[in-house]
Amino acid sequence: MYRIGIDLGGTEIKGGLLNEEGEILHKVSVTTPVTDGFEGVCKRIAELVDELIKMAGLQRESVKSVGVGIPGLCDERGFVYIAVNLYWENVPLGERLRQIMGLPVYIENDATVAAIAEATKGSMKEVINGVLITLGTGVGGGLILQGRAYSGNHGLGSELGHMIIGENDYNCNCGSNGCLETFASATALVKYTKSLLKEGNFNSKLRHQLKDNLEDLNAKMIFDLAKEGDEIATKAVNRFIKYLAIGIGNIINLLDPEIIALGGGVSKAGSFLIESIEAEVGKYVFFKKGKRHCKIRLAELENDAGIIGAAMMGIKRED
Amino acid sequence: MYRIGIDLGGTEIKGGLLNEEGEILHKVSVTTPVTDGFEGVCKRIAELVDELIKMAGLQRESVKSVGVGIPGLCDERGFVYIAVNLYWENVPLGERLRQIMGLPVYIENDATVAAIAEATKGSMKEVINGVLITLGTGVGGGLILQGRAYSGNHGLGSELGHMIIGENDYNCNCGSNGCLETFASATALVKYTKSLLKEGNFNSKLRHQLKDNLEDLNAKMIFDLAKEGDEIATKAVNRFIKYLAIGIGNIINLLDPEIIALGGGVSKAGSFLIESIEAEVGKYVFFKKGKRHCKIRLAELENDAGIIGAAMMGIKRED
Repeated sequence: MYRIGIDLGGTEIKGGLLNEEGEILHKVSVTTPVTDGFEGVCKRIAELVDELIKMAGLQRESVKSVGVGIPGLCDERGFVYIAVNLYWENVPLGERLRQIMGLPVYIENDATVAAIAEATKGSMKEVINGVLITLGTGVGGGLILQGRAYSGNHGLGSELGHMIIGENDYNCNCGSNGCLETFASATALVKYTKSLLKEGNFNSKLRHQLKDNLEDLNAKMIFDLAKEGDEIATKAVNRFIKYLAIGIGNIINLLDPEIIALGGGVSKAGSFLIESIEAEVGKYVFFKKGKRHCKIRLAELENDAGIIGAAMMGIKRED
Repeated sequence: MYRIGIDLGGTEIKGGLLNEEGEILHKVSVTTPVTDGFEGVCKRIAELVDELIKMAGLQRESVKSVGVGIPGLCDERGFVYIAVNLYWENVPLGERLRQIMGLPVYIENDATVAAIAEATKGSMKEVINGVLITLGTGVGGGLILQGRAYSGNHGLGSELGHMIIGENDYNCNCGSNGCLETFASATALVKYTKSLLKEGNFNSKLRHQLKDNLEDLNAKMIFDLAKEGDEIATKAVNRFIKYLAIGIGNIINLLDPEIIALGGGVSKAGSFLIESIEAEVGKYVFFKKGKRHCKIRLAELENDAGIIGAAMMGIKRED
């Protein structure tokens, strides 16, 4: 038997046909026809599913379920409350797709879907309680609790990036001050590094690399130079790590998970990131006895996480 | 059929025999024979269970399960890693009680047990995702997630009181700075109020009430005077509320529960507490659309929560 996973984004719909072991056998992607509205997007998803079945030379009956990860909030039947990038509000996505396709359909927020992918094929395999934190432009997250995807009362991915952990010198886009995202996103790292470069009190190869064009600064450059011990890069990364460790410590104190996996663009800093966090997070963890508090790992699945997680949702839901 | 619930504390063991609806039919309590060690405490629990069965005139077979709430950490089979007040480390409580009593035995941390009680007979009845926060000398908590008691990777109640939410002018007992507990416990409220009284810049009836004996100050006095608009009491309660709202906002952003229930001594401030929090917490909640973010309520069960939750564990586990 087979599963289909759909990663529905604001610009692209990616789809994959997987076996029950979670291996992707066929993949396709199309532009999201946002301007064709809800009905147009539903039809495009159905076409993409048909194409995958055809590519694999399968009977429709061999597909046990279609999972869809959405950039928005929905209930467990797949009723979408809101998906800003698609201009959707209160649309019955699950119901409509079931009607058109005649297959079991499961729908979840894309952050939760990424956590499901990590829990089935990646860094959180066989984990009962695990948290995926994505460190990119913002900070997001998905939760696996008691062996199941957890999406709270509104079917949203965890907004753990908006956990307040201190005071910061600028406000978050959400209006609050002190959100984790304003300390530990790529955006925050770049912003703070720029302020250090402007101060001019520190040495850094960054000035040379950027040739005074601060707009070219990105998180990768900062992490790469921090690895070499560059003064400004190290100062900025240390601050990033300190606050990320507080955020992770808070999650550990609240949920005591087995694993926290770090994904998103910043996680490309790799073992340097993990080792730096490991060295810092113990300071903030209340319960230090017994089994080691929590493993911190890199997420393993990159671009395919959306397809894999969406396909594997069916297995999780039928349990 | 009947259930027995045991609330095992460092000074007292309380036990109750309940019907399947969670009503307490008989109650007894004895001193905890801490100095008799693990074996002595197990025997005392077994005697207390026998006494309850006898009081009710029941056959042993009519008791479906015995639940025990412990002041410590354990795994799901009831192996206790640590219970500081009982001087226990790595003892097979569940196994031993099953041997002595010949009945199904369930064991959980006492904070989780209190949340189970609220979820079966109190403020979180029929709630799928709910959080109990206890505001007392410290700040503790118990979680009900996806309709089940959640106790993480170490069988502990949630250490949500050690979530870091800002910077404070004194360190927490745990060694960190900025723990929720250092802003929003009875201890923190009293400490901050004392510092305001010492500053001498503000008016307050508290000075008169205390007759210069600051040691008599307690959280109830402060809340009572805040209700009347007293200057110092209001200033202290506002700060307490602000940080408690940040902590609650963080939990909502992370877990998006249906209900947060407030228990513990400070919750006796009643509707004044709830209304103050309600007015503040919206500022810190990321997702404000759709269903209302989260209900905030007073916990309903007081001293009996330990017995009720322990007895009801059986029902939850057999689900």
